[in-house]
Amino acid sequence: MQFEQLPSRLLENAVSELAKLPGVGRKTALRLALYLLRQDRSLSSSLGESIIKMREEITYCKVCHNISDTEICSICASPSRKHNVICVVEDIRDLLAIERTGQYHGVYHILNGLISPLDGIGVDDINISELGKRIENNDIDEIILALAATVEGDTTAFYIYRNLGKDGIAFSTISRGISIGDDLEYIDEITLGRSISDRIPYQEQVKAR
Amino acid sequence: MQFEQLPSRLLENAVSELAKLPGVGRKTALRLALYLLRQDRSLSSSLGESIIKMREEITYCKVCHNISDTEICSICASPSRKHNVICVVEDIRDLLAIERTGQYHGVYHILNGLISPLDGIGVDDINISELGKRIENNDIDEIILALAATVEGDTTAFYIYRNLGKDGIAFSTISRGISIGDDLEYIDEITLGRSISDRIPYQEQVKAR
Repeated sequence: MQFEQLPSRLLENAVSELAKLPGVGRKTALRLALYLLRQDRSLSSSLGESIIKMREEITYCKVCHNISDTEICSICASPSRKHNVICVVEDIRDLLAIERTGQYHGVYHILNGLISPLDGIGVDDINISELGKRIENNDIDEIILALAATVEGDTTAFYIYRNLGKDGIAFSTISRGISIGDDLEYIDEITLGRSISDRIPYQEQVKAR
Repeated sequence: MQFEQLPSRLLENAVSELAKLPGVGRKTALRLALYLLRQDRSLSSSLGESIIKMREEITYCKVCHNISDTEICSICASPSRKHNVICVVEDIRDLLAIERTGQYHGVYHILNGLISPLDGIGVDDINISELGKRIENNDIDEIILALAATVEGDTTAFYIYRNLGKDGIAFSTISRGISIGDDLEYIDEITLGRSISDRIPYQEQVKAR
């Protein structure tokens, strides 16, 4: 389909901005823009403002980099969580998915991405060095690598194990009951819960290669 | 899936606003919000501002209600279009689709919706009275009702025909039938039935070649 010129510059701007969102093509963007035009202007203004405000003012937990309105997120601040077990996840959606299982009682570390040379995302673009400092400065017994079963997830897991590992820390990955190529957030809760309780020591997996 | 509380009010606001868009569920909304958080803040600000600006400042063609930055849109202002033939469409997407065919040389009237009592959309919520005034004040020879083949489309077409019709104006609808390239066995019965009762003399088609 050719990209025809829309009859208004204002509409064209909104459509091309909406089409920058992942999974939103130009056709969908036009549908969304026309929907907004039909609705009361309060919808567009609250949508636009909430997006801008979120991006400008969002803050992250100083410990685990979870999105949080407080300096330390409620999980890191909770005395009932095991602070010597860190579950490393790609982003907050994976944290929410694991929390939903009710199977995990440790704390988290949110990388905010995975190492992906093809997308230009390197070690310094995600929160890996912060994880290193956490491991150095605290008594950590176990690191659970709960990353996607993809090339990027595997690369990131291996990098963390190789560079941040030290004596006395057990590394594990969530068990590969999840299919290769699947994103964590789409797994059903029972499978995901099982894959945490059945986690496999990472050293054994590396040796087996 | 339960709606868990997100760990930040700012994120929660953006997600619930995004989830108001048609076809965007809470899960997709969260994915979009996290994507925006990962990108440079210029993306969120230009997206948010373009949406607000579009809704605040958009103007419509005074004649056909097409979205337009000028008082009269380029189609209505064109001397090469037939101004005595009006094609009535639901919204600008349908106009764009018809323009893409290159088969139509008349002008348009954009209703900005269809009569839909179930959704609380009545005659006064769409641009029908404006169409009536256009028909009264101009020499119109033909009205083409290019509306969706749905209950709402049929209701709207019938209302316009009954209430705005007058001597000397031919009303037509775009033909309903099987799509080019479709196999007969996969067509629904109503469409196939219509395409038989609305059959077109073959001689005319052969002559037209």
